[in-house]
Amino acid sequence: MYKLIRNEGTARRGELVTPHGTVQTPAFMNVATCGAIKGGLSALDLKELKCQVQLCNTYHLHLRPGDETVKKLGGLHRFTRWDGPILTDSGGFQVFSLAKLRNIQEEGVTFASHIDGHRIFMGPEESMRIQSNLASTIAMAFDECVENPAEYDYARKSCQRTVRWLYRCKAEMDRLNSLPDTINRKQMLWGINQGSTYEDLRIENMRQIRELDLDGYAIGGLAVGESTEEMYCIIEAVEPEMPKDKPRYLMGVGTPENILEAVKRGVDIFDCVMPSRNARHGHVFTWEGCRNLFNAKYTLDEAPLDESCDCPTCRDFSRAYIHHLFKSGEMLAMRLCVTHNIYFYNTLLERIRKSLDEGNFQEFYNNNIRKLDTRI
Amino acid sequence: MYKLIRNEGTARRGELVTPHGTVQTPAFMNVATCGAIKGGLSALDLKELKCQVQLCNTYHLHLRPGDETVKKLGGLHRFTRWDGPILTDSGGFQVFSLAKLRNIQEEGVTFASHIDGHRIFMGPEESMRIQSNLASTIAMAFDECVENPAEYDYARKSCQRTVRWLYRCKAEMDRLNSLPDTINRKQMLWGINQGSTYEDLRIENMRQIRELDLDGYAIGGLAVGESTEEMYCIIEAVEPEMPKDKPRYLMGVGTPENILEAVKRGVDIFDCVMPSRNARHGHVFTWEGCRNLFNAKYTLDEAPLDESCDCPTCRDFSRAYIHHLFKSGEMLAMRLCVTHNIYFYNTLLERIRKSLDEGNFQEFYNNNIRKLDTRI
Ligand SMILES: [Zn+2]
Ligand SMILES: [Zn+2]
Repeated sequence: MYKLIRNEGTARRGELVTPHGTVQTPAFMNVATCGAIKGGLSALDLKELKCQVQLCNTYHLHLRPGDETVKKLGGLHRFTRWDGPILTDSGGFQVFSLAKLRNIQEEGVTFASHIDGHRIFMGPEESMRIQSNLASTIAMAFDECVENPAEYDYARKSCQRTVRWLYRCKAEMDRLNSLPDTINRKQMLWGINQGSTYEDLRIENMRQIRELDLDGYAIGGLAVGESTEEMYCIIEAVEPEMPKDKPRYLMGVGTPENILEAVKRGVDIFDCVMPSRNARHGHVFTWEGCRNLFNAKYTLDEAPLDESCDCPTCRDFSRAYIHHLFKSGEMLAMRLCVTHNIYFYNTLLERIRKSLDEGNFQEFYNNNIRKLDTRI
Repeated sequence: MYKLIRNEGTARRGELVTPHGTVQTPAFMNVATCGAIKGGLSALDLKELKCQVQLCNTYHLHLRPGDETVKKLGGLHRFTRWDGPILTDSGGFQVFSLAKLRNIQEEGVTFASHIDGHRIFMGPEESMRIQSNLASTIAMAFDECVENPAEYDYARKSCQRTVRWLYRCKAEMDRLNSLPDTINRKQMLWGINQGSTYEDLRIENMRQIRELDLDGYAIGGLAVGESTEEMYCIIEAVEPEMPKDKPRYLMGVGTPENILEAVKRGVDIFDCVMPSRNARHGHVFTWEGCRNLFNAKYTLDEAPLDESCDCPTCRDFSRAYIHHLFKSGEMLAMRLCVTHNIYFYNTLLERIRKSLDEGNFQEFYNNNIRKLDTRI
């Protein structure tokens, strides 16, 4: 259940109550693709990094270890030891981006596993069954994510099919939640807005899917090839059509700048692999901008990654040490930087919430929007 | 300063006092080759894994980041954030095993870096200067480690040169410890016994090096090609010649079984990359024997790695989860298993100490010697 606490312009400060705990929004979801944050972090580490929600990938977990294995092991919470809310994506995005030889039909998609090539069929019902086995808090609807730019006609047809799929998702989820051996019988279903970069398709689609009165709505199919300007325009176009009393999730986005821009335009929830992926390549986010720890200028630099950060990494370790660890190929380099970046993202969202609470989000935005994505 | 507390047969329970803290012996040193335990552990993690001493490698740190860089950054303690005792090896072992195109002369060794091939000269004085820059608690003498089997004549000549090198190490260390800008002016020097698998050479060498009245003595040049039976025979031969009031360190050894056998023969201190290296390949030590976490039988196994272990990994994570993380190539798998193995080794030594305190080491040995190295 989502409760809107406060507005500043279009920006929203809210609260999302789930059976696994309450999420203060705007919030960032920390991506644990295969059930673990890449870079060697465990679910228990997330607790001290201000993480509120963990996101796991249905496609990956379906292939390995298999959702039926996860169900036998008591679901994702018991398996990964994360006891807060977990959102699973539908698998759709990965089917369309990672899998090979896919064949889309009304019934669903047949594709080849990117691990061993074996052929798999996934449609709305299969996605719901997998997510029910994983027992996440929030399941995402099975959709087709069209790469941008897309032909108008293809985008329109794909949108219409995704709406038909959404009705099938809803029916299957209701059935699964009524079964006695379902682990999380309060699993929520969130719908996904599609329509590529066409405002009319986006608006029409949003109007159709809000009819189902789902627990939340995502904007999908962005940050997949279009410019950030186009992305912001689509958010602005579709936002007025989104229910005010439901959480809004912008899928797979983005940089600190993207997040500030999207919060300003009314988005509540984000996920992105960027904090952990960038960290593993030595790129860290700070309140002054982005640093590359491979840079030789850090050889003798005893300052922490970010002088204003109090994360477990910055409390103890120097840029010089982390620079050395990267040059030596030591895994600890990645772990320390992922720790910092995850903490940075969760702190960014915490400060955004605070500024909304205090009615000075616009000031916070002005002070930070140019700085955060700068390379220093 | 070493204090012998108690004997049981040849086995010794003691205490080693250093400027960076006291080490209860027998003790295991945890290997942080480049200044970090491989597998993503930090010096701060070691604190909760019962680690007493950290070992760092002179050769690696000389090449990267450079010992002068470490000195500018305040020495290894400040650099790695480990505040307990640190032992550095002399670099000799790596020069003879990792480096290419080496050329040994009376003065020292010229060799090519294994990183970029540039030619480096290292002799006793250079090794002492590097270790002084690193500012470890204990510096090891620069020696030649001869691979087994070795020709008697070569082993004898190498031994004699190593004794001459030891006198040069001692003189240079005394000089360095008297300089005002030396970070750790109380750095200790430990000598190394060599002599391949020849008992007479080993004994003669031990008698020569104990003349220098150093702070500790190591047995080097074992576990480098000979059988474990030969290794135990050499320890038995040389042990009666080692001073009773100095710590004895068996370099680079070994399995839990090797450690039990060596403690029984009078050794106090050990180091080995095995706990972290094996863990990174899914091999964990338990009180029932060794497990391979890649084994499919763990797919649905919800027990911890070792049911009698209370390490941070076993407190929370299942074999099933760790098996999945290995299959998925997740770094967290390595970190969880390295955490367990390091804790296991330090706990093994803790239990050995307890059994010596209580006068039942032989019983502890009997109960565990066959089990610990078994594959289960
Ligand atoms: Zn930080
Ligand atoms: Zn354990």
